[in-house]
Amino acid sequence: MSTDTPNNGLSRRQRRDAAQHYLDNLQGNPFPNSRKLYLTGSRPDIRVGMREIDQSPSVIGGDQHNPITRDNEAIPVYDTAGPYSDPNANLDVRAGLKPLRRDWILEREDSETLSGASSHFTQQRLADGGFDHLRFEQLPKPRRAKPGRNVTQLHYARAGIVTPEMEYVAIRENLGRERIRNEILKRTHPGQSFGANLPEAITPEFVRDEIARGRAIIPANINHPEAEPMIIGRNFLVKVNANIGNSSVSSSIEEEVEKLVWSCRWGADTVMDLSTGRHIHETREWIIRNSPVPIGTVPIYQALEKVNGVAEDLTWAVFRDTLIEQAEQGVDYFTIHAGVLLRYVPMTAERVTGIVSRGGSIMAKWCLYHHKENFLYEHFDEICRICAQYDVSLSLGDGMRPGAIVDANDRAQFAELETLGELTRIAWQHDVQTIIEGPGHVPMHLVKINMEKQLQDCMEAPFYTLGPQITDVAPGYDHFTSGIGAAMIGWYGCAMLCYVTPKEHLGLPGKEDVKQGLIAYKIAAHAADVAKGHPGAQIRDNALSLARFEFRWEDQFNLSLDPETAKAYHDATLPQESAKVAHFCSMCGPKFCSMKITQEVRDYAAANPEALIEIEQLDADAGMAAKAEEFRQSGAQLYSKVQSEA
Amino acid sequence: MSTDTPNNGLSRRQRRDAAQHYLDNLQGNPFPNSRKLYLTGSRPDIRVGMREIDQSPSVIGGDQHNPITRDNEAIPVYDTAGPYSDPNANLDVRAGLKPLRRDWILEREDSETLSGASSHFTQQRLADGGFDHLRFEQLPKPRRAKPGRNVTQLHYARAGIVTPEMEYVAIRENLGRERIRNEILKRTHPGQSFGANLPEAITPEFVRDEIARGRAIIPANINHPEAEPMIIGRNFLVKVNANIGNSSVSSSIEEEVEKLVWSCRWGADTVMDLSTGRHIHETREWIIRNSPVPIGTVPIYQALEKVNGVAEDLTWAVFRDTLIEQAEQGVDYFTIHAGVLLRYVPMTAERVTGIVSRGGSIMAKWCLYHHKENFLYEHFDEICRICAQYDVSLSLGDGMRPGAIVDANDRAQFAELETLGELTRIAWQHDVQTIIEGPGHVPMHLVKINMEKQLQDCMEAPFYTLGPQITDVAPGYDHFTSGIGAAMIGWYGCAMLCYVTPKEHLGLPGKEDVKQGLIAYKIAAHAADVAKGHPGAQIRDNALSLARFEFRWEDQFNLSLDPETAKAYHDATLPQESAKVAHFCSMCGPKFCSMKITQEVRDYAAANPEALIEIEQLDADAGMAAKAEEFRQSGAQLYSKVQSEA
Repeated sequence: MSTDTPNNGLSRRQRRDAAQHYLDNLQGNPFPNSRKLYLTGSRPDIRVGMREIDQSPSVIGGDQHNPITRDNEAIPVYDTAGPYSDPNANLDVRAGLKPLRRDWILEREDSETLSGASSHFTQQRLADGGFDHLRFEQLPKPRRAKPGRNVTQLHYARAGIVTPEMEYVAIRENLGRERIRNEILKRTHPGQSFGANLPEAITPEFVRDEIARGRAIIPANINHPEAEPMIIGRNFLVKVNANIGNSSVSSSIEEEVEKLVWSCRWGADTVMDLSTGRHIHETREWIIRNSPVPIGTVPIYQALEKVNGVAEDLTWAVFRDTLIEQAEQGVDYFTIHAGVLLRYVPMTAERVTGIVSRGGSIMAKWCLYHHKENFLYEHFDEICRICAQYDVSLSLGDGMRPGAIVDANDRAQFAELETLGELTRIAWQHDVQTIIEGPGHVPMHLVKINMEKQLQDCMEAPFYTLGPQITDVAPGYDHFTSGIGAAMIGWYGCAMLCYVTPKEHLGLPGKEDVKQGLIAYKIAAHAADVAKGHPGAQIRDNALSLARFEFRWEDQFNLSLDPETAKAYHDATLPQESAKVAHFCSMCGPKFCSMKITQEVRDYAAANPEALIEIEQLDADAGMAAKAEEFRQSGAQLYSKVQSEA
Repeated sequence: MSTDTPNNGLSRRQRRDAAQHYLDNLQGNPFPNSRKLYLTGSRPDIRVGMREIDQSPSVIGGDQHNPITRDNEAIPVYDTAGPYSDPNANLDVRAGLKPLRRDWILEREDSETLSGASSHFTQQRLADGGFDHLRFEQLPKPRRAKPGRNVTQLHYARAGIVTPEMEYVAIRENLGRERIRNEILKRTHPGQSFGANLPEAITPEFVRDEIARGRAIIPANINHPEAEPMIIGRNFLVKVNANIGNSSVSSSIEEEVEKLVWSCRWGADTVMDLSTGRHIHETREWIIRNSPVPIGTVPIYQALEKVNGVAEDLTWAVFRDTLIEQAEQGVDYFTIHAGVLLRYVPMTAERVTGIVSRGGSIMAKWCLYHHKENFLYEHFDEICRICAQYDVSLSLGDGMRPGAIVDANDRAQFAELETLGELTRIAWQHDVQTIIEGPGHVPMHLVKINMEKQLQDCMEAPFYTLGPQITDVAPGYDHFTSGIGAAMIGWYGCAMLCYVTPKEHLGLPGKEDVKQGLIAYKIAAHAADVAKGHPGAQIRDNALSLARFEFRWEDQFNLSLDPETAKAYHDATLPQESAKVAHFCSMCGPKFCSMKITQEVRDYAAANPEALIEIEQLDADAGMAAKAEEFRQSGAQLYSKVQSEA
């Protein structure tokens, strides 16, 4: 059954070369007409990477030979790809990414380099030469808070300190929209934010305050200085997480590094490594060292591996060592299923699909077998103390989430949510940054209560949901069934959406599945930002719509979430290059075009400012005939001339 | 540019054979494990076709060699494919489908067969031998209401008559759910219907009453007796329309017939033929005679063809003749842009994308050019009189719908909507069935007001929206961006959703695009039915979820909207046949499985009915150790035995 062969019969060098070759190709393939743009903060080493999409000029008159044009400004967009979208970055998969946060961490002088790994498992693993062929060569020495110190962003925020990380995300969240000049692009509907607080401009102080209140987190393990700071919170852009990870059934280290980089290219704000194979530890070394985004894990998966998959054999000692092992590798957030209490387990007995969370069912089995309370709950204080030493954020897992819409919002699910609120209070006492995981499978009309109850029970700690999937009838399309719920709950206030791929419930996602899942979720997150009224969110919609109206086909493709696909679809009907500059589209054809007529309407209205008033009188006197004549002169001919020459 | 060559260099016989060959293949390829089921009404000729999906038995104990099983009942589902999903139907594309409604129409004795077509254009076209090679051979003679009679379903409903069509849809809307026995499958959440009225069982009298109130329509031209009756209304299942049609840029008659049948296979409740090519008339003959679903058109497109694409040359006479031409061919509903008033046109001048509706911009241009009021508005009474003679339903077009989210809900859009309400009153005075078309491009938070305003302004006449698309940044994925808005507005009360394909804004949809658009919209419509609380809507979700929980992989595939894709995705990870009966999935692998543990929890709870209470006391006395021991005996071993033998 298991095909877990991480070396695929290739030599170490061959595998490294393959991975490097992939990165080189990817770097040579940036998004069309895009440039890497760095916005510098209050100090030169705060350089926030964005992507800027150049546009072609608009033809506003003249003819093909002597067109009168107007320039269009470049549109800056949020970029999760880090150095992978920078042609000037010098990437080496063996060395990993540059540690852009290292100096900030050192300057704080509240952490120290350890002589070696604190985890017994890591020590054994390093001592075992049998894994050398899989290992990341240039492993950094782990850092940890000095005795008695707390190195979390929440700790700094509460102390009134604005860290470089906070300033970085403030600049990043503003999307460079202060650069936009065209007023049409700035048009935006007032949003409906359900109580969210979205200021016109995000300041570093606002970021600090949101973190201090526990309403937002910056996942930033001091052992992952390569990651670009990003923020997760209801009052910021909605974020998307992509899950990768091999399982005992499939895939290898190189594939996971490829999926990581691929995920960042297509918009993953964070990536969770859910590996369950025999080489979780080594796979993670490679992923973290090469990741520009925060990495999350579910430590219980690895702990289970360590006891050979026998849930009842799990112990606090094994789990604790796993937390330290992963914290010192640089994992930025842990999913911990500490809310699965013994007394909640029987509440799932009558469900159609029972407990579907892997972490949840592991703990449920452990609780029943020993008839003891969940040891994660019992040791939660100690878990928090460990997290505070590395600034690992907590993602409180929803082990009782429904696995079918029929099981949604039941007692087991909501009882656990209330316990997660209790645990949030404890985590906050330790200054540990905390987010709350949510469902799952929920029909549309039951989505909102999930958001409302979470905000209340968990005191506005950021919500992080898996979809929710709003119907169960479409396996193979669950990136869509869950994307609908994701868009809605993002609008209601969810801070991060965990993507679902088309393979959900059926198989393991390949690269194309990862891309499809991410695009579905970037659409959901963006639609939520627009509906909430996030300032600047609508600029990209407006720019693309204007390009569409003006038949700037290439701009329309380039401004889209997936330029390659948009262009390919257009080519499928109108492959000729001329069609890319044609003033008509394949839907109506050259003879008739609604956009063309709209231009005539506009010219008419411009030429007749009083038209609206006059027309409203609607009396068909001679003056009207004259007005009609005017129109024949002014409007009716425009474009048709350009047309005939096209 | 134009590649409109309907004969593709093939002879008439070759083309017919190609189309027939396609139908034969399609019929030989029914959905897996599905049977055609006919539910008979109060008279033997009311036979409502459904599809019933058989399930495999559940393994509830024993081992692989002596499994203890429980049978699972077949799940009936709504079927739009008509005879195309019936292996016993004898299909002949040259003869068209059987006219199942003919006797019902004849019995009413209120219509008569005409000696020939009333439309001058049709007469000329028939007289012109140049089109013989394109013509449908066995054209029926057109029928029309006898002088002074009105043949609409609305007219009968108001007269208190329950027609066979009404009884047919009542049976159809009940989804055969009275056959379901398993109580688990019947579990359902109370819905949130926003004032919709969804009775436990749909009766023919309820259907009549909803039609009489104008809250629902049955598009049923007396010249399209081949169509299976279906109903469009807020208090019934949400429906989906698929647009097909060649344009001057592409495709031929056979392709359109193929797309029609393909659309019905994938769930289109109605199909709109938006052809704009040189052979609209002949293409329509083939589509209508072979369509089991109502066919809609936008007559202004053909009228424009007749005046060589010059909008200002359009006249009422040309348009009127086109209505009669299409009514006598059997078109079931007309999109009429009678709400585009001269005074509304300048309101679009400041929009980013102006007027994007083709019909809307044609009328806008006409109004401006002549500086006269829209002739469709001026002649609306006469349009209604024509519709009443054939029972052509009116779909009042939204010529002012926004083409970008920035233009959503503006004065032009809502002013037109108010006029559509005024026109609805007029149509109802003529007993003409009427629905209202809606946007378009609308951000999530502005969707609901569209539904509320339509219900109010148009007195609950059914709403029929194009999406709405909730962001503009994802061309290539607009089946999804609009599917989100469609699911939401369907939930809020929209009666029919006009699908959008991935090629929207970019090119003309091919067969795969049509399928992708339909599946996205079937998901949206179904999710809306579940959220509204339509009785029985959740049965399919529950059946699929139960199959998933019990690892009945084939049942999970077969119950899905797209069995082929679900199975193909599973095969991609676990191709072995054994995996289809394996009690684990590719996500967790064989060693650990959350579903497995849930079964253990359930067995434990079943074996210990007092568990819940006891556990809540949570004192770790000796009795607990004993209870834990029990669990080791009872639960812990189950499945692992089956497993080891797998």
